[in-house]
Amino acid sequence: MTRFALTLEFDGTPFFGLQRQKDGPSVQQAVEEAVMRVTGEEVRMHSAGRTDAGVHALAMRSHVDIARDIAPFRLMEALNAHLRPDPVAVTHCEIVPDDWHARFSCTGRAYVYRIANRRAPLTLEKDRLWQVPQELNHEAMHRAAQALVGLHDFTTFRSVHCQSDSPVKTLDRLAVERDGEEVRIHAEARSFLHHQVRSMVGCLALVGMGRWDEPRVAEALAARDRQALGLNAPPHGLYFVRAVYGESGDPSSEN
Amino acid sequence: MTRFALTLEFDGTPFFGLQRQKDGPSVQQAVEEAVMRVTGEEVRMHSAGRTDAGVHALAMRSHVDIARDIAPFRLMEALNAHLRPDPVAVTHCEIVPDDWHARFSCTGRAYVYRIANRRAPLTLEKDRLWQVPQELNHEAMHRAAQALVGLHDFTTFRSVHCQSDSPVKTLDRLAVERDGEEVRIHAEARSFLHHQVRSMVGCLALVGMGRWDEPRVAEALAARDRQALGLNAPPHGLYFVRAVYGESGDPSSEN
Repeated sequence: MTRFALTLEFDGTPFFGLQRQKDGPSVQQAVEEAVMRVTGEEVRMHSAGRTDAGVHALAMRSHVDIARDIAPFRLMEALNAHLRPDPVAVTHCEIVPDDWHARFSCTGRAYVYRIANRRAPLTLEKDRLWQVPQELNHEAMHRAAQALVGLHDFTTFRSVHCQSDSPVKTLDRLAVERDGEEVRIHAEARSFLHHQVRSMVGCLALVGMGRWDEPRVAEALAARDRQALGLNAPPHGLYFVRAVYGESGDPSSEN
Repeated sequence: MTRFALTLEFDGTPFFGLQRQKDGPSVQQAVEEAVMRVTGEEVRMHSAGRTDAGVHALAMRSHVDIARDIAPFRLMEALNAHLRPDPVAVTHCEIVPDDWHARFSCTGRAYVYRIANRRAPLTLEKDRLWQVPQELNHEAMHRAAQALVGLHDFTTFRSVHCQSDSPVKTLDRLAVERDGEEVRIHAEARSFLHHQVRSMVGCLALVGMGRWDEPRVAEALAARDRQALGLNAPPHGLYFVRAVYGESGDPSSEN
């Protein structure tokens, strides 16, 4: 058996999520079925993150074990051919050691959340950004976000369906920037709770609109209560952008 | 009657073009029908450019004449509400003098053509860029493009269906740049012939692939023969990005 690491880009819109679902199409099922058509093998794909319905990925990292002798480039080309017309593409493929695991070896994950801060409905970028018509104060959002960086109990920002053993996580970065009418939130951590990024973004958006004052984000965190959450941002603005591998978690050792 | 200038953003994918068509949906029809639903008036929309099926716009400029007394902001909001779910949005609306004409007053037009220079199929940006898997030499493309800048007979780069009186046009700018895996071609002129940008991009792509040497672009131009065209690039990479108004055609006087 050879272990292949795959880098996946996908549009989450038509999927019920990255991981296999009983009730609808998933990215995992699409890739596993493509592997079956290429190699005749039934494989199980593992991935760095679990993403919800509607959430996108620019560079998800996954792996599959394949018995058939095939070169990484040929596997990538064949998978892309068989993935059509599903909006999933393999953008990189390489052989990795048998003890490399897309999920368990991953030491850092990065997401970007994109907000279209404008009144006009989205056309070319429909389902690609969350449209917020109220003027957002991105500087206030960035200041408020800093209360969430560090080691905290993120119970407030965690879905009731979260399967993580502990709500205590270290958030390494939460930065808000504006590029014209687009507001972007960058989130980095070793790992995230279910809905954590969307929950943090939702509260920051309330700060940006002026509906929450800045200290209320820290208060919501301290409450350790899902009821203290102001807003869960919709999935379609969220992108998984990077998985980091290596002891240090240093992006320079990214695989 | 009050003349309203509209700035339109649209995804060209589901349309047969900007202008009204006998055989299918158009952006013009969508906006005119939205005006009808808002004001009860049958209007005719005029636009700075004519775009083909699949071609997009970030900021097309158009105008309509409306008898009903309505504020520009209210008109914009009402049109956007009635345009749903069509992927057309009014991003700006203002009252202009009666002699201001979106097409005839326009003194400069700018397009961007986007190429995804990668092997993997497009997912999130499907129908937004032309995917070219062969490695493109964008510097060679930029050098070759300069042969087309200036006053020329562009017969080679003109659709057989072009309705322009003359194939002689002045091309002000044709610049090729790379941003990661994306190659962008910027084209600016007072006006363009039908298919001119796509035809120029097609030939530059052949240069980028190494299938044409650089001087062949100048030779194709000098041939003044549509048969000398190497390739017409597909519509879905093309964006109308700017209409300029003002005597000088200076972008600083852009309306």
